[in-house]
Amino acid sequence: MNIGKDVVKEIKQNKVPHMNIPIRSTSNIVYDEKNLCYILGNREFSRSAGNIRHIKKMTQLVKVADFSKQLVKEGTRHVTKRELYYISESWGEKLKFDEQPESDEIVEDIEAMISEPREAINIIPNPKGSIYGDIAMRFKNPKGKMMTVNCLDTADGQQIGPRMTEAEFAKTSANIIIAIETTGMYNRLIEENAHEKFNALLINLGGQASRSTRRIIKRLNEELKLPVYIFCDADPFGLHIATVIISGSAKSAHVNKHLCTPRAQWIGVTATDIIEYKLRSDKLRDLDIKRIKELQVDPRYEKDKRLQQELKVWLKIGRKAEQQAILRYGFEFVVDKYLPAKLKELKAPGIR
Amino acid sequence: MNIGKDVVKEIKQNKVPHMNIPIRSTSNIVYDEKNLCYILGNREFSRSAGNIRHIKKMTQLVKVADFSKQLVKEGTRHVTKRELYYISESWGEKLKFDEQPESDEIVEDIEAMISEPREAINIIPNPKGSIYGDIAMRFKNPKGKMMTVNCLDTADGQQIGPRMTEAEFAKTSANIIIAIETTGMYNRLIEENAHEKFNALLINLGGQASRSTRRIIKRLNEELKLPVYIFCDADPFGLHIATVIISGSAKSAHVNKHLCTPRAQWIGVTATDIIEYKLRSDKLRDLDIKRIKELQVDPRYEKDKRLQQELKVWLKIGRKAEQQAILRYGFEFVVDKYLPAKLKELKAPGIR
Repeated sequence: MNIGKDVVKEIKQNKVPHMNIPIRSTSNIVYDEKNLCYILGNREFSRSAGNIRHIKKMTQLVKVADFSKQLVKEGTRHVTKRELYYISESWGEKLKFDEQPESDEIVEDIEAMISEPREAINIIPNPKGSIYGDIAMRFKNPKGKMMTVNCLDTADGQQIGPRMTEAEFAKTSANIIIAIETTGMYNRLIEENAHEKFNALLINLGGQASRSTRRIIKRLNEELKLPVYIFCDADPFGLHIATVIISGSAKSAHVNKHLCTPRAQWIGVTATDIIEYKLRSDKLRDLDIKRIKELQVDPRYEKDKRLQQELKVWLKIGRKAEQQAILRYGFEFVVDKYLPAKLKELKAPGIR
Repeated sequence: MNIGKDVVKEIKQNKVPHMNIPIRSTSNIVYDEKNLCYILGNREFSRSAGNIRHIKKMTQLVKVADFSKQLVKEGTRHVTKRELYYISESWGEKLKFDEQPESDEIVEDIEAMISEPREAINIIPNPKGSIYGDIAMRFKNPKGKMMTVNCLDTADGQQIGPRMTEAEFAKTSANIIIAIETTGMYNRLIEENAHEKFNALLINLGGQASRSTRRIIKRLNEELKLPVYIFCDADPFGLHIATVIISGSAKSAHVNKHLCTPRAQWIGVTATDIIEYKLRSDKLRDLDIKRIKELQVDPRYEKDKRLQQELKVWLKIGRKAEQQAILRYGFEFVVDKYLPAKLKELKAPGIR
């Protein structure tokens, strides 16, 4: 992608420079059967320097593209969207953004143009989540020096920030990845040695997974061929956390294919588990029921027999449960019985 | 504190066992001039096994105390309040908690009785936050093996979880601690090498500081004599984040003295900074103004001349700003100019 070069080329040809930007509205979002996620369709809109209403945004876009190109070149700095907004003040009255939504929009325009998430041009999402387990990561520290750390050499896990998200995977003994919704259950699995028992990397999502966490899960899955299992609360919100990791969201259609892990699998806790393990449960809210009905007709999941079966059970029992509810059987049950049974059902490698 | 022994002793003396528990309501909260925070007064209430309405709670309290004693003895497991609630199911119909608020209340009763935060008996708050900088931490890993890791040997910081919170501080070259409200600014300071420039440990609060983060800040301050500086948004919420670290909250009066760092200092961003550095700002909301007026008459801060002066300026200008607003002067300004000026004003060691 040569945003700047294309503009310069048109100027040299004595043309009025313009740029085409993929449309990100729902009318241009299509389901991609190959990548198993929503992506943008082919429709674009055009910004032209010949249009007085376009010229400011077009110039700002080129400026942001140039700014992030410098960041990538330099290689040690990353900015958040909020930082970008404030930094724009130093660009002078004509280029600065008046409100943050304006600069956010330009960043998304660029993401759509280059078909890459903004992390690729060092404009980073707020990190959340951490990793625990045997994997050596190689990354450039803030002074530009290459370093290697192992995610087992830590008390409570390595935070997934900008350097971790981009790190090279140097060496691991892990066979699988277990991504966990709550920090409480993540700590439980660390303390019950789940990483050793399952040869697993444990990833703390801390609720809805951040983009950085989704990105690193995808990379671990693709680059190291590690299968991914997602362990959530037994409610539609937990299921939603899993589906966003698996197939992304409509809102991020323009970058989904760089963030999704289509072959990741949902461990549960499932609706059937609530019955089978007699888990303490609460009544589903109307909002939960609405969400379950939406998932029943969602094109991404209509062929997933296991999920469709679980959605039916959910509506039938009308109950939801938290993943910690498994602790009714004590500390070890989750690693000695529950997870082995579930991972076996999902044919995880190394689990008999 | 011998919760169990005291009960046994009374039984052996043929007395009806009872226990005294400090009252945690606002009527029993007093300001402690020595510890510079709110603490509980001397009033207690009594639970007696002779009272049919007390006997279940009293038995549950003894059971939770026994359970956590086992955790402490074993030394590798920590539970959240939520886990405790579900674990109670395995204690049988008579002891199990019907709702989580019931078990939460018992945990707070025990905290008040032993005058220690629940972390001390391995019932942990949800961790949040991370540390970056040169400090070697020694802790027991989940298998009970002692390990040492340096918080500089990490890509984005070491997460502050149960093991980190309790770790021994083995070695550090740091002179000061800078605690930062937003993850964005924390990353900025890492990338601008603030930890080297100020010989600092950088602590990411991630918004309101969690109890674990407040605990580790206090320990670093007391055990290593490292002065603490808190860097927040220029609004009453940012100021509130600082004041909770400094002097705790009324809600946690029963454990404040183990969580507060009374000598920690608020860097800003101050109201005066908004004017002096011409920061992009927004109008204060009614809620913000109400909070400022409360702080003006708060006994904890009425003698703090600098803070009182800033509160006046805030009301006068009626504006607030985010800490990232400083980026209008580029990436380096915050470490080359802003922080040196502020730290000098606050007489931080090693800053000229």
